[in-house]
Amino acid sequence: MAVMGKNLALNIESRGFTVAIFNRSGWKTEKVVADHPDKNLVPSYTIEDFVNSLEKPRRIILMVKAGAPTDATIAKLLPFLEKGDVLIDGGNTFFEDTVRRNKELDNSGINFIGMGVSGGEKGALEGPSLMPGGQKEAYDLVEPILKKIAAKAEDGEPCVSYIGPNGAGHYVKMVHNGIEYGDMELISESYNLLRNLLGLSVEEIADIFHEWKDGELDSYLIDITADILTRKDDEGTDNPIVDMILDRAGNKGTGKWSSQSALELGVPQSLITESVYSRYISALKDERVAASKVLKAPAKVEITDDEKKELIEKIRQALYFSKIMSYAQGFEQMRVASEHYDWNLKYGELAMIWREGCIIRAQFLQKITDAFTANPKLKNLLLDSYFTDVAAKYQSAVRDVAALAIRAGIPCPGFTSAITYYDQYRSEVLPANLIQAQRDYFGAHTYERTDKEGMYHYEWYHEE
Amino acid sequence: MAVMGKNLALNIESRGFTVAIFNRSGWKTEKVVADHPDKNLVPSYTIEDFVNSLEKPRRIILMVKAGAPTDATIAKLLPFLEKGDVLIDGGNTFFEDTVRRNKELDNSGINFIGMGVSGGEKGALEGPSLMPGGQKEAYDLVEPILKKIAAKAEDGEPCVSYIGPNGAGHYVKMVHNGIEYGDMELISESYNLLRNLLGLSVEEIADIFHEWKDGELDSYLIDITADILTRKDDEGTDNPIVDMILDRAGNKGTGKWSSQSALELGVPQSLITESVYSRYISALKDERVAASKVLKAPAKVEITDDEKKELIEKIRQALYFSKIMSYAQGFEQMRVASEHYDWNLKYGELAMIWREGCIIRAQFLQKITDAFTANPKLKNLLLDSYFTDVAAKYQSAVRDVAALAIRAGIPCPGFTSAITYYDQYRSEVLPANLIQAQRDYFGAHTYERTDKEGMYHYEWYHEE
Repeated sequence: MAVMGKNLALNIESRGFTVAIFNRSGWKTEKVVADHPDKNLVPSYTIEDFVNSLEKPRRIILMVKAGAPTDATIAKLLPFLEKGDVLIDGGNTFFEDTVRRNKELDNSGINFIGMGVSGGEKGALEGPSLMPGGQKEAYDLVEPILKKIAAKAEDGEPCVSYIGPNGAGHYVKMVHNGIEYGDMELISESYNLLRNLLGLSVEEIADIFHEWKDGELDSYLIDITADILTRKDDEGTDNPIVDMILDRAGNKGTGKWSSQSALELGVPQSLITESVYSRYISALKDERVAASKVLKAPAKVEITDDEKKELIEKIRQALYFSKIMSYAQGFEQMRVASEHYDWNLKYGELAMIWREGCIIRAQFLQKITDAFTANPKLKNLLLDSYFTDVAAKYQSAVRDVAALAIRAGIPCPGFTSAITYYDQYRSEVLPANLIQAQRDYFGAHTYERTDKEGMYHYEWYHEE
Repeated sequence: MAVMGKNLALNIESRGFTVAIFNRSGWKTEKVVADHPDKNLVPSYTIEDFVNSLEKPRRIILMVKAGAPTDATIAKLLPFLEKGDVLIDGGNTFFEDTVRRNKELDNSGINFIGMGVSGGEKGALEGPSLMPGGQKEAYDLVEPILKKIAAKAEDGEPCVSYIGPNGAGHYVKMVHNGIEYGDMELISESYNLLRNLLGLSVEEIADIFHEWKDGELDSYLIDITADILTRKDDEGTDNPIVDMILDRAGNKGTGKWSSQSALELGVPQSLITESVYSRYISALKDERVAASKVLKAPAKVEITDDEKKELIEKIRQALYFSKIMSYAQGFEQMRVASEHYDWNLKYGELAMIWREGCIIRAQFLQKITDAFTANPKLKNLLLDSYFTDVAAKYQSAVRDVAALAIRAGIPCPGFTSAITYYDQYRSEVLPANLIQAQRDYFGAHTYERTDKEGMYHYEWYHEE
């Protein structure tokens, strides 16, 4: 059993349940049992034994690699399942696969829940944030268990709720991960500016993040960033570990899916997408090293000590402002997806179950819940008074930081796309009229008018 | 027959060929023949008659709506086709569909060419840029016709060449369209700055574009922009037509596909994607109007008359610089796609066949051809000395323009993503090391080190 599956099993067992476990490699199952002799884990060594050992209706959690392995495992289980059983896929599955599997299994009367599980290994063991989607009656059967194993927010509420039918849970998890990419990008841009524009040391930056985590920015990712920056290399040098890590970011594809879906649904989700591209360009390390020797940098921007202190606060404001833009885009994406796929997502609840257990957990999510509680039909987070006010207060800082970064040659795609989105969204008029004119000119695509209804075409060529 | 199909038929006929035509609605076929009594057009009213009227090996161009209608038409044709016949799909087809159809038809010995056709209605009639992909031997059979109907560049070369196997032609057309989105976005941002930052009138801006089109920016899109800005409303007001067009941009999906593919292939293609998102946000007209009344704008930025003149030139430089970044990304995307799908694309030739006929036709494409002629293995356009030099010369202008736009609250996602890409690509070190540390912290994803090979994991929790 891989670590996520093992930890989830141990978590469930720790809440007073007996858990049957199975892995295609019997020795792995044996090892888990041997390593935890005092736990109520019941090993099985064939799928048939495993299924038969379960109480009915059976509740099975799959923790296998997303994609073909999931289909293969379902095919092996299927002959032994009965109507009313509940199969839960806890992997990072592409939501369209979940929609398909839910439909296929539903034809045999088997319930299928696609469940997003966030929190990493530690979350799986101690309490993750859970995003289950599928048949509501199937969810009701497993709700008592899920509520026990999920993380608990400060107010004691478990971080799980019924997300919606078929692929809704995995979709919401995908957007969660996209938002996570955005948060990480914004933190890395802040770090980069503190380091390379302000010239601060890793220790000084660690102190700044330690301070930030007790304010509006209070969140798991800020917290671990503060911690990371205090750690020394574990391979013999005396350097901060961050200086020994290669600047080539990997990804597991969920950020990419999130952006591809936003593109498909027509949602302007620039910040997450820029974060994905930022990882891609980081991966071109050799090209970048070569280009750095050829492409000209701008003149160095000097920052005085007085300016530094002011800039640290401006960067903090820019980070919070940009985070708000990212969440505004992510929630807009979920709203459009919910309408498109008929999921009836409850946006306030989503923010609520992200308050603990998951990677993007943060104080700030309470503000999102409050916004949707005040107005469940809210079209965009920016239109809620709390967020409108923060944006008004911090916009000048993010403008200063983004403009300065551009002059200094320090790339900040997250900050610049955040302020760009703000300025686009609050633009009564955008220059898309010119684009429509061009499209009508070369392709006769027609356009709407500002003064009356209907579609129009201009006879561009007659007057030539 | 729709206009693209009709115009292409008339174009072929005008080069001395007899063209058989067929449409599922017989009256449309009749009308085309009746409207052009002196042309060698041979109408057919059943698919069987149509196919039987053709010289063997048959060469058939489909101009139908992309997607299911294309499959339906192929299914109707198939029973009457013979080994060695050549079917050409000239629609805006998603390249993966072309890959599939090419393979399926190849099993029956039928050649299938997916051909990108750019240039709109006018191009189809007078000479489009053609991007055919499929079996090379099939291309050889149609090359003489394609060379005759294609646009001719200044040096007399026809704007067509064999792009590569299966979906290569439609892929290249898709990236062409993505680049077209980028060009249009950059022009609209320039227009917006001239109008709303510098406060110029539509007439003054028309003059500026007229001037620009005779320099480095010389291109079809700049040309029609200059023309558009001189046109008056045709519906009774005395306003410039551009002021009567609603700022809600449409799209036909090729820009979206281009971005989705870049995301899939791991290529940082931010400028085209920002252009797609820019159209999406323009479409949210009602939301924007509402938001404009609530979200706070920055303080007005005043521009003196002296600064204006300087800024016009800076905007011109920013536009050219950003266009270069967009093409650098687009060509990088085609390179990665070519390697991924094994297409062996010839980048210099692609730029060559875009010099005339298509929407992005421009002087500037010759520079790209030159760059790839000098170095066919060029990894990124920015590393060619012409582009390196322009970027060095113009970077300061684009920094000034982008920074000023951000301060003034005028959204310029194209310009900002262009300078951000430049700064990322020339960064020897990016802050992705911090992202890798975070990923290792919460997900044990491991990282590479700067000083030695291998994958490492840090024991973050042991020291807590």
